[in-house]
Amino acid sequence: MSTASYRLAELAAHIGGEVRGDGEVRIHQVATLESAGLGQIGFLANSKYREQLAATRAAAVIVSAADAEGCALPCIVSRNPYAGFARISALLNPAPAAQVGVHPAAAIGAECTIAADAAIDANVVIGDGVTISAGTVIMAGCVIGNGVSIGANCRLYPHVTVYHGCVIGNRLIAHSGAVIGADGFGLAWDEGRWLKIPQIGRVVIGNDVEIGANTTIDRGALDDTVIGDDVKLDNQIQIAHNVKIGDHTAIAGCVGIAGSTTIGKYCRIGGSAGIIGHLTIADNVEISAFSLVSKSITEAGSYTGIFPLSRKEEWRKTAAQLRHLDDFAQRIKQLEKQLAALQSQTNDEENA
Amino acid sequence: MSTASYRLAELAAHIGGEVRGDGEVRIHQVATLESAGLGQIGFLANSKYREQLAATRAAAVIVSAADAEGCALPCIVSRNPYAGFARISALLNPAPAAQVGVHPAAAIGAECTIAADAAIDANVVIGDGVTISAGTVIMAGCVIGNGVSIGANCRLYPHVTVYHGCVIGNRLIAHSGAVIGADGFGLAWDEGRWLKIPQIGRVVIGNDVEIGANTTIDRGALDDTVIGDDVKLDNQIQIAHNVKIGDHTAIAGCVGIAGSTTIGKYCRIGGSAGIIGHLTIADNVEISAFSLVSKSITEAGSYTGIFPLSRKEEWRKTAAQLRHLDDFAQRIKQLEKQLAALQSQTNDEENA
Amino acid sequence: MSTASYRLAELAAHIGGEVRGDGEVRIHQVATLESAGLGQIGFLANSKYREQLAATRAAAVIVSAADAEGCALPCIVSRNPYAGFARISALLNPAPAAQVGVHPAAAIGAECTIAADAAIDANVVIGDGVTISAGTVIMAGCVIGNGVSIGANCRLYPHVTVYHGCVIGNRLIAHSGAVIGADGFGLAWDEGRWLKIPQIGRVVIGNDVEIGANTTIDRGALDDTVIGDDVKLDNQIQIAHNVKIGDHTAIAGCVGIAGSTTIGKYCRIGGSAGIIGHLTIADNVEISAFSLVSKSITEAGSYTGIFPLSRKEEWRKTAAQLRHLDDFAQRIKQLEKQLAALQSQTNDEENA
Repeated sequence: MSTASYRLAELAAHIGGEVRGDGEVRIHQVATLESAGLGQIGFLANSKYREQLAATRAAAVIVSAADAEGCALPCIVSRNPYAGFARISALLNPAPAAQVGVHPAAAIGAECTIAADAAIDANVVIGDGVTISAGTVIMAGCVIGNGVSIGANCRLYPHVTVYHGCVIGNRLIAHSGAVIGADGFGLAWDEGRWLKIPQIGRVVIGNDVEIGANTTIDRGALDDTVIGDDVKLDNQIQIAHNVKIGDHTAIAGCVGIAGSTTIGKYCRIGGSAGIIGHLTIADNVEISAFSLVSKSITEAGSYTGIFPLSRKEEWRKTAAQLRHLDDFAQRIKQLEKQLAALQSQTNDEENA
Repeated sequence: MSTASYRLAELAAHIGGEVRGDGEVRIHQVATLESAGLGQIGFLANSKYREQLAATRAAAVIVSAADAEGCALPCIVSRNPYAGFARISALLNPAPAAQVGVHPAAAIGAECTIAADAAIDANVVIGDGVTISAGTVIMAGCVIGNGVSIGANCRLYPHVTVYHGCVIGNRLIAHSGAVIGADGFGLAWDEGRWLKIPQIGRVVIGNDVEIGANTTIDRGALDDTVIGDDVKLDNQIQIAHNVKIGDHTAIAGCVGIAGSTTIGKYCRIGGSAGIIGHLTIADNVEISAFSLVSKSITEAGSYTGIFPLSRKEEWRKTAAQLRHLDDFAQRIKQLEKQLAALQSQTNDEENA
Repeated sequence: MSTASYRLAELAAHIGGEVRGDGEVRIHQVATLESAGLGQIGFLANSKYREQLAATRAAAVIVSAADAEGCALPCIVSRNPYAGFARISALLNPAPAAQVGVHPAAAIGAECTIAADAAIDANVVIGDGVTISAGTVIMAGCVIGNGVSIGANCRLYPHVTVYHGCVIGNRLIAHSGAVIGADGFGLAWDEGRWLKIPQIGRVVIGNDVEIGANTTIDRGALDDTVIGDDVKLDNQIQIAHNVKIGDHTAIAGCVGIAGSTTIGKYCRIGGSAGIIGHLTIADNVEISAFSLVSKSITEAGSYTGIFPLSRKEEWRKTAAQLRHLDDFAQRIKQLEKQLAALQSQTNDEENA
């Protein structure tokens, strides 16, 4: 996709790094050290893999000062090679240009404010009273409800749905199938059947958020569901009504977060984890993949709750004994008591 | 959104409750006790939080008779304050009106029966031989397959897909991205590769069902997949082919239910739980979040299966010992035997 | 749906089986043994259920040679009755015919190559430079990005999204809401915030793949995400960037596979299982439903990791004792040591 190319020295300047070797090498694309070839730049983020530097056919590499030592290739020395790589890749791979303006096959409601340089693609349906700010791209088939406000320089990939009244900051990236603002799961039990609780809160999303494909974020029941700045959500995540997620928190795929839970800043939540409702998770908490959080977490740190994988026949034995754990505890206690009695009896006899 | 307002006495009559205090107070919206202000009504469903009544700035509250005692505010006394709140909120927050009729940018197939007061929005695609009953709203971008029948007063939010032949009752609410009637996962292994089993059953959905965003319900392989009346499904749920779900059962987000499992009435299934295939779950069963049901459950009750969360370093120790459980069992038994032998030996000596 | 009918002898010839009894019986549909009636054929794949043969009102059945012995009905003897059934069902239930050509309400980009007998339905949006091969059906509302290539005889159900540059083989079946090629979850941490890593790889999909509803397959970060031939993916699966899945592997619903993991051929992965990133799973591995794979698996076999379900009150006891497992291990060891000392002491005394 990338057609532009840059001199290595230009790229170094772009990321505030320092060139070692030939700064005139032309670079047009990034690649892994294994697959890189002519005109491509790789990176080494972890010294553990340093031997890859000898084998790579990359035109240049981005490395830390320590790893630059024995490096025979032209390189950019960076205090954070992975971040430098991200910035160079973004320069070489700009988001595809979009057709500015409103496609004739889009349907736009009444009293909307759509920036002149926004791009609204085919089959987009926009409700009444919607605001779409400068530079934002709404791709094919998205549906935006009444009264929604979307900030500047966002990109909504095809088939994103935003329900009425939601508020989105700047630079949101939302992938296909994401649903923002559907009703939360609010029910009252009455006379043998369910009554729906109208969900009248909104979803309010900060700046620099990314939302993965088919991720769902429910609107609040009464107050709002709130996603902080720089929050990164992978695919297939479910965020229930009135959840609040602190700035800079990253959540991997398939996580489910139940209603009214508050998650701190700078948290990292592993794939397929679950967090039950009405909890509070502190800042800087890391949750392992596939773990269920069933109590609030008040201290930063790493938490996990996984039943370890084993061969099926071994697992059967373990699982069968698990139910006897309480019995084991009693029996060990009993053994200790009896043994102590016997020891003192034997010693008495000896001393007798 | 809400513009109408009502006198407190009118609201009390609406829910069959009794006014205490000034019945002339005007109410235009519901709110939490914490955030409620002028013209807003809150509710207290749990006496545990009774002290919130003293602090709230709500114009009125809905309470039980017991909690009404010390309440200084105008209130509605209700035998089920949460249900009363739901009914008042529904009155104050009616579903947004939809444009009755068929939008010019919708595509309608041959031989369809669409009620005159149904609302079919932009970019909806409806196949041949489809029936859509009175008062039903099909929002932008929905796709309805051939021969589908949809009852009265349903609302399909944008981007709902209903495959051919499915049958839907009255008052369904289906949120964006829900897929009803896709093929079940039916495969036969033959000569080193998979053969697809055509999925010729349908999905049949009762009355008063709600289906969350991005939830999927597969069509039956031969017979139908059946969702009972008043079943409530949250987001991101997967319901496989030939599953049957009894009336009034509620299922939280991210649950997966494998093929041909039958779930009883009045069950409650927690988020991210799983139920394997070909099981039968009795009525009134409650399954905790994140638990796997791998055997049929024949008795009502609460069931769970969660490995408890701990700090990573503690978990490592527990996980390492888990594989020794069977060994522990043998060693405790052995200790008990040896100790008994030693005790009888010591006693014999003593008595000797 | 099925209107054609066949003589039993024709069906037997179609699957290479042998007729026993009246080969002239006309069959128009498949059914379960329980529900089958006039003109319908059932099958018996497992001898365990042989007594169903006596009770069924099917017009004919497909059975193994062993089960054919006592069978009073007309039957087809097949070495693999389930596969025979699949083939007969496919004959009786062909995929619904699609309107060949491009629907006037579809939007097609520049420089596309679309086969004359392909079918592009209403509201499909196709980017620039897209190739769609013979016999492929793109149903309503699908969005196909720039430069995508789709092979022959594929069927994309409504609302499938394929991002730019992805490559799809022949005979793909993709169900509604599937998203192929969204960005992987690639982030670099830098100076207190996240930097996005551009995702410049593609998704490359082999022949004879099926992708379930709302399943997501992310594009590669640098290299491609690769799905082999005859891979079968159920609904709501998340496949992260740079995952590679070997030929003939089948994955049940709600599974999450993290980035850069390689899965072998002929694997079977149960519903809601998880596999963390950067692992290698051997060929012919079976993973139970709801299990987390947190290490590479180098040997074929069945693996599981499930905390067993129990009544809530029992589970509380087990969960409470789990944290003491390491303590139990120490105490058992200590008991064994002390008991041995006591035994030798008692024996010494006895011998004294």
